[in-house]
Amino acid sequence: MKNSIGVYGLGVMGSNLARNMANHGENVAVYNYTPDLTDQFVSRHAHSRIEAYYELEPFVRSLKSPRKIFLMVSAGAAVDSVIESLLPLLDQGDIIMDGGNSDFHDSNRRYRALKERGIHFISVGVSGGEEGALNGPALMPSGDQEAYRQVAPILEKIAAQVDGKPCCTYIGPEGSGHYVKMVHNGIEYADMQLIAEAWQFLHQIVGLSIPETAGVFKSWNESELKSNLIEITAEILSKTDQETGKPMVEVILDKAGQKGTGKWSSQEALNLGVPSTIMTESVFARFLSSLKEDRVQAESLLEGPSPSGEEMDKDYWIKQVKEALFMGKICAYAQGFQQYKTASEQYGWSLQLGDIALIFRGGCIIRADFLNHISDAYQENKDLSNLLLAPYFLEKTNRYQASLRNVVMKGFESGLPLPCLSSALAFYDGYRSARSGANLIQAQRDYFGAHGFERIDQQGTFHARWLEPETVTTSVKVNK
Amino acid sequence: MKNSIGVYGLGVMGSNLARNMANHGENVAVYNYTPDLTDQFVSRHAHSRIEAYYELEPFVRSLKSPRKIFLMVSAGAAVDSVIESLLPLLDQGDIIMDGGNSDFHDSNRRYRALKERGIHFISVGVSGGEEGALNGPALMPSGDQEAYRQVAPILEKIAAQVDGKPCCTYIGPEGSGHYVKMVHNGIEYADMQLIAEAWQFLHQIVGLSIPETAGVFKSWNESELKSNLIEITAEILSKTDQETGKPMVEVILDKAGQKGTGKWSSQEALNLGVPSTIMTESVFARFLSSLKEDRVQAESLLEGPSPSGEEMDKDYWIKQVKEALFMGKICAYAQGFQQYKTASEQYGWSLQLGDIALIFRGGCIIRADFLNHISDAYQENKDLSNLLLAPYFLEKTNRYQASLRNVVMKGFESGLPLPCLSSALAFYDGYRSARSGANLIQAQRDYFGAHGFERIDQQGTFHARWLEPETVTTSVKVNK
Repeated sequence: MKNSIGVYGLGVMGSNLARNMANHGENVAVYNYTPDLTDQFVSRHAHSRIEAYYELEPFVRSLKSPRKIFLMVSAGAAVDSVIESLLPLLDQGDIIMDGGNSDFHDSNRRYRALKERGIHFISVGVSGGEEGALNGPALMPSGDQEAYRQVAPILEKIAAQVDGKPCCTYIGPEGSGHYVKMVHNGIEYADMQLIAEAWQFLHQIVGLSIPETAGVFKSWNESELKSNLIEITAEILSKTDQETGKPMVEVILDKAGQKGTGKWSSQEALNLGVPSTIMTESVFARFLSSLKEDRVQAESLLEGPSPSGEEMDKDYWIKQVKEALFMGKICAYAQGFQQYKTASEQYGWSLQLGDIALIFRGGCIIRADFLNHISDAYQENKDLSNLLLAPYFLEKTNRYQASLRNVVMKGFESGLPLPCLSSALAFYDGYRSARSGANLIQAQRDYFGAHGFERIDQQGTFHARWLEPETVTTSVKVNK
Repeated sequence: MKNSIGVYGLGVMGSNLARNMANHGENVAVYNYTPDLTDQFVSRHAHSRIEAYYELEPFVRSLKSPRKIFLMVSAGAAVDSVIESLLPLLDQGDIIMDGGNSDFHDSNRRYRALKERGIHFISVGVSGGEEGALNGPALMPSGDQEAYRQVAPILEKIAAQVDGKPCCTYIGPEGSGHYVKMVHNGIEYADMQLIAEAWQFLHQIVGLSIPETAGVFKSWNESELKSNLIEITAEILSKTDQETGKPMVEVILDKAGQKGTGKWSSQEALNLGVPSTIMTESVFARFLSSLKEDRVQAESLLEGPSPSGEEMDKDYWIKQVKEALFMGKICAYAQGFQQYKTASEQYGWSLQLGDIALIFRGGCIIRADFLNHISDAYQENKDLSNLLLAPYFLEKTNRYQASLRNVVMKGFESGLPLPCLSSALAFYDGYRSARSGANLIQAQRDYFGAHGFERIDQQGTFHARWLEPETVTTSVKVNK
């Protein structure tokens, strides 16, 4: 009897996905380029439904036709070379899935190149880390819908399930699955930084001890903030380091790393012309954190406000911070979903934003109850221009904007940087300002570069005769 | 007698550069791909030292050896096709200069491809708009130093001159000249947005009329803020629209356009790991401004603070805003120069940051007295890790940080978005914080993705056993 699927790559993620598939009744062939990981897999995770191979050809031959091969190798050049090595062994109609954090540009290219060879390529965004891979990740597959239909039974079975629905649905054409995963990660970066800022505020300004902050996050996880990231934050803050007896978080060096998807997401927002300010500030906050030596030196040289010595009303401020965090989160998700909407329009992907929110409810890092409301918003109006304008979010933001304002102002007053919370508020105020200062910028651009401007009272592009000495200026219509 | 230089491309920039060269005694050959612009040039700008050509071959043949050809065509594919058409007509050692706003990645590629063919390629960042092109731009040439020496007499003559020094100097290898121009534009975006925010504050919060704001900017141009952008802002604000009798700025639609270099600069900051938050917020602010219809709709739905009705002390707040703007500007330039420093290190360019500041003093859009202090800072310490730590800027920021704080808080209190001023302050406070919240982020990343963290008390990378039920947690050293 032939295997129903092959998993190529036996790092932790690949191993756990293979075990997940076998646990759901699939016969799985596994292979790794170097035999050491295969040996390790065999010794640790022997499973009656898993066959390990040390040679590529028998691995491929062991698969039912059309063959389904799930790649879980490092994103980048490795994916291309694995595909090259597989091609001579495959037949028309076989299916390659890439579950890595690949750049969606690469996925688009691979999709097209394989289509020409008669091979289906499915980009699968996978979120949930090691634990999710084993017990149910969120999956974001894209490519040909017909090919997806053939792998759907396996993918939807191994995905996390919420309210009886799999956290896996067909995303769209070409590499759109990896695009959706990329922005998911951008939102995740923003969410993490917002939480870190809320926590710093509670600890440094409200004056809560670390265990007290753990308690606050624990209680928040029983509110509308309930989510994976709030839950693990509560867990983290409740841990004590064995060696020093201090709270674990206090012995960790405050230099944050990153692996690229958050950065890509911001770069793509810049390409699309979408103001994803919050995720971008969160990426920059990680960069700034890594300049630890500079920061230590600067602290003694650059001045800030003196401590006010003010007595803080703890209960009042805990509630303010909670509402500020929720409001910041709404803005971050509104920006991320705006980016999906614009990408979908510009790339012709027909992304179903409500479905994307649904699959994020389980398995993935940003899973949260909150996502039901996003899904509802798009269910009610699939052409919604921005989440902030949907009834649920409108009601929340109108209720919480004052708390975000309060917290951001107190942060600045105290010298505590809140780059994402303050960027969220600036975005919110900018979004609700019918008049911006961009008329002055258009005037400057026209003054020094003759770039032209629109008038509020007439159609067309105009150029003003700025350099003439009179204070009364004429503007002339130009062809643009 | 042969011509000393050829200008390919007779749009406004190319025409003006050719005239500038001729006005400085060079014999210039000019050519345009379509004859209409050549006709127009001949009829409008006949000059005894300029010869116009309608055919490429005689244009090239008219040039002294080694030939020097300055391209002023649209950045992108046009540059490649022009180079292709020139190559059969050139000899080893000839020099092609590209004065467009080319992507530095393209410039690197062109440099290398042409080097293989024995042709020198010089990327020339050009700033100053039409007026600068004619009367003296800032020029940022890069490529082989030896090739630069051959074109230096012409470029340094046509460049703006400040204190007897040309605003043109050899930048570095390959496409580094276009890189420097790109970040110059990123700084320019930031500077423009900071000015727009200061202006909005004066008009909408302090309550000054448009003519009063013109007066304030005029007076600021006689202070340490003296610069091209402040000067043209004062000019713009003093103009009245002939058709409506309203201030010109008020009839201009507040949707800001952009041409890409600011966006590239932010994308590159993300690539390099440099926190260039202010220029990035300025790019996003332009994007947000372009969502005019959304903003108009949102204004009636999303709530903000009620007007306080507070009487504002005008003189006090004008001074506060001035200091806030100067402080914001310092942070924006500190970030831009940090980006130069990091690019120089990562790409091996040996950029001379002090020299770059010197050539920005004249010709270009961001020209300002202020740049002398940047140049001095790098003269005193060429390994300076950040401008904020140089004595002049340290003294200024310590004096003005409270004003920036005041203005940003008042903006948030009033519901006026100040995305760049607030991002500048968050950056400043972040930069001077020895302790950030990134320890929590590292803990989260280790919790859900086993990404590891450093400890404050031991060398190495660690992973904590977060999932064990005990509150006392062990962290184990891992190989990374």
